[in-house]
This record gives sequence, C-alpha cells and structure tokens, in this order.
Amino acid sequence: IVAGLRDGAITAPHDEDRTPGVVLVGGGPGDPELVTVAARRALSEADVVVADRLAPRELLDELSPDVELVDVAKLPRGRAAAQEEINRLIVARAQEGKRVVRFKGGDSFVFGRGYEEALACEAAGVPWTAIPGLTSAVAVPEVAGIPVTHRGVAHEFTVISGHLPPGHPESLVAWDAVARLRGTVVLLMAVQNLPAIAAALVGGGRPADTPVAIVSEGTMPGERTVVSTLGSVADDMERENVRPPAIVVVGEVVSVARPHG
Amino acid sequence: IVAGLRDGAITAPHDEDRTPGVVLVGGGPGDPELVTVAARRALSEADVVVADRLAPRELLDELSPDVELVDVAKLPRGRAAAQEEINRLIVARAQEGKRVVRFKGGDSFVFGRGYEEALACEAAGVPWTAIPGLTSAVAVPEVAGIPVTHRGVAHEFTVISGHLPPGHPESLVAWDAVARLRGTVVLLMAVQNLPAIAAALVGGGRPADTPVAIVSEGTMPGERTVVSTLGSVADDMERENVRPPAIVVVGEVVSVARPHG
Repeated sequence: IVAGLRDGAITAPHDEDRTPGVVLVGGGPGDPELVTVAARRALSEADVVVADRLAPRELLDELSPDVELVDVAKLPRGRAAAQEEINRLIVARAQEGKRVVRFKGGDSFVFGRGYEEALACEAAGVPWTAIPGLTSAVAVPEVAGIPVTHRGVAHEFTVISGHLPPGHPESLVAWDAVARLRGTVVLLMAVQNLPAIAAALVGGGRPADTPVAIVSEGTMPGERTVVSTLGSVADDMERENVRPPAIVVVGEVVSVARPHG
Repeated sequence: IVAGLRDGAITAPHDEDRTPGVVLVGGGPGDPELVTVAARRALSEADVVVADRLAPRELLDELSPDVELVDVAKLPRGRAAAQEEINRLIVARAQEGKRVVRFKGGDSFVFGRGYEEALACEAAGVPWTAIPGLTSAVAVPEVAGIPVTHRGVAHEFTVISGHLPPGHPESLVAWDAVARLRGTVVLLMAVQNLPAIAAALVGGGRPADTPVAIVSEGTMPGERTVVSTLGSVADDMERENVRPPAIVVVGEVVSVARPHG
C-alpha cells in the first residue's frame, strides 16, 4: 500500500476535485513516470477517461474499476470523424455531470488537437482546463542524450508536424524559411515524409551534411537512435527500417551530443 | 501521512536509487504539481540538491533535513563564473560518492545550460542522466489557454531565447528567417529585448497586426496575460509594466484563444 500511495497508484479520498467538466491531460512521451503529479491526480479524480493510443497505457491499468474508460484508439472510421466523435463524447459526458479526463500522449496543444476539444467544450458551455504534458519534441531527444538547445550551437528550436509533406496544399509550413533557420528542427509524425522534408531543407539551403537523429520509441523499452545526415537520411532510414513513432532531430546539437545507437 | 505519501512528499524507503552520479531534473514552469513523478522521485533519492531560482521552491521545503541543499540563486559573481562553479560543484559531490540532483525551472535542455553540465560530468567520468521537465515555452501558454499549435492556424512553433537582441554579435538566431515563418513564435527571457525583437520580426515581413500575448508568472498565483500586437507591444508592455519572468507568444494562435487578461 505504501508503495502504491507513493507512486500515485492509490490516492487518499479527501480533497478530490470531482466537479463536472473536461480536463485535457498530456501524458508525456510514454514512460509512465514522465507524467506530472497533476496528471496522476486528475486521473485519480476522473469519472470518465478518454485515452489515445500514445497515452501511457500502464496508467490506465491503475484506474478504479468504476471509472469508464473509452479507448479512442479503437474508434473506427477516419481521423476527422474520430475527432468529431471524441468532441461529442467528452461534451456529452461532462453534461451528464461527469468529470472527464481526456488523456493523450505528449502535450495536448502540441499537435494533439487539444484546442479543438477545448473549443467544443466552450461551444457547449462545458468548463475545461488543461494540464500540460511533456512534449515528445523535447523529452524524447533529452532522454536519448540530445539537447535541443546548447550554448554556442543553437539558440532556438522549431517543432514541426511532418504529417503533411512540403508542397502539400493544406500545409501551413514555410519550408523555405525553415531551411534558412540556424537552430534545431524537431519533426514529429515525420517518418513517412522524412525523405521529402530532408530534400526540401537541403533545397532551401541547409547543408546536406547537417546531422540528423531519429529516435524511435523514445523513453520506452524499444528506444533506438539512428544517426544520419540530411543528405543520406532517406537511405539510412530505409536500411535501418525506421518505423513510427519516432522523433527526428535536425541540427548541430546532434553532433554535440554524439548519441549512441 | 497518507496525503503526504500520495503527493510524493514522503517516500517509502525501498527500491531507491542512490548510486553516485548527477541527475539533471527539469522542474517545470513553477506550479509544484507540474513536476513529473520521476522528478519527485529523484528529489526523494538525492543526497545533494543544487537548485536554481526558477525551480519550484515548495519542493525544496519537503527535502529531508539530511539532504545538502545548494541554492545557486545565491551564488555571487557573474553568470559564466556561476555556471563554472555549478559544474565544479556537481562533479565534486558526485565524485565524493553522492547522488546529486541538479534542479532547475522548466526543462534543463531548453536554454537551461543542462548539456554544459552533462559535458562537465562526461569530462570527469561522472555518470549523468536527465529527467525532462515541462518547458515553460509550451506549458505557460497552455495553462493561460493558448495552444502553440492549432489545426488550420499553426503547424509549427519556434522557441527562441530572447536574452540577446537581434543583431548582437553572439546571437545565433537568423531573425530574417524567423520573420518569414508562418507558425507560432515563443520567446523566453525576452522581456527586456522584446521591442527590438518585435521590430525585427515586422522588419522581416511579419505583419504588424500579428497578435502577441505576454504571460507573466505563468502557472503561479501572480499569473497575468497582456494581449497586444507586434506593432504595439513595445508601448503596451511599458504601459502594463510587464516584468520578467514572462513568456511571449507571437502568432495567430493568440487570436484563436482569445485569452483573458
């Protein structure tokens, strides 16, 4: 019991917040110890938990049996339809008087569509709050030994969703400007489009020998780092059979860190 | 006791890690509940804690009396000298066989000089690990209700240290490229240089009516948000008497969020 209390698996029954509403909780990069104390508390106070595929799954096993768990990884249909269904679900449960935790991997506001859910709550008059989570963009490189900034090397970093390739009509990323930045570029959801992105960065002026690290399954037992360059990453990721989820770090910080494989 | 165990203030004495070495721990934006479970565990296992001014101070009050607490906010001399002294201190204590926690606000690798400390450890043969913290660049806007990304608005965000103004000979930031980005720009340590930075962004092509939010003392009791635009932020921050620490968010996500004051 003491160990359970210590790591938050068991909670004392007093001063809990069970007011109806929605709490958008970021679950961090995967390791269940890399959630915040506030996140664990929110899970312990939930009536309903709506969880994503990349949320730390171990924490779901610790939920009380009377908590309704909705695993949206199992929702059928396409991505847009699934998001509408999630919006509808969290609003409906909150309107029934339930305390709803929307539990995601990473941070809800870093490509997590969290603000879409917040707007759905606002439109319905449902109160919402957000508990930030560690974004994988910073935490995964860090645990792999790569700093996104370093004195004399990078004074800025840019985090980009790679789920649309350069030139896609719906892309909002000015890749030519990104290519002219001097700092670190971190790409999320980019494995599939990485060859096209690397080509766009080199075409925009970033040197082909700029180092690249691809960290797969960061902070998890299967973590692996492949080091390459912008010029050769397309070949290297194919040879190394890199698969999502992975975080890509582009910039001289990779050389400073000399990450191991 | 139960409440203390629950929130991590008291820990059970088994399976602790007290092997000598240095753990670089990010403490998040200030709210003591916005540290990770791993961070609390690391603090509970420390022989020595070396803490920054912006680390969550409440957690230091919970340290066991036999833990050596070094408050580097009290170190005299300049910034560079202080960093050398910190490097020397953490290495020396680890070499004495102690488990050292280097405890900072935010994340150690986001302008936290954490990798300089890691390199000092490596040079001395001292083992080190890093526990990521919530970076204020994402967490502070989030708690204030501003998402750094939002579908149809921003597919990327750039985090920049504002401690050097545009044009400073030691600056590594290509501000002309930053100005041509379409996504969100988050500035840390930028209060003093914000008028010059805003002018550089407008000069580089970002519209003068681009919305800006300045969140002071984010996640803390004194939190306050001032909303402005790139064109008028210099005047507005003077009239509103904005003081550090503050996080600056530049981009259309500020309009989407319509943060309150």
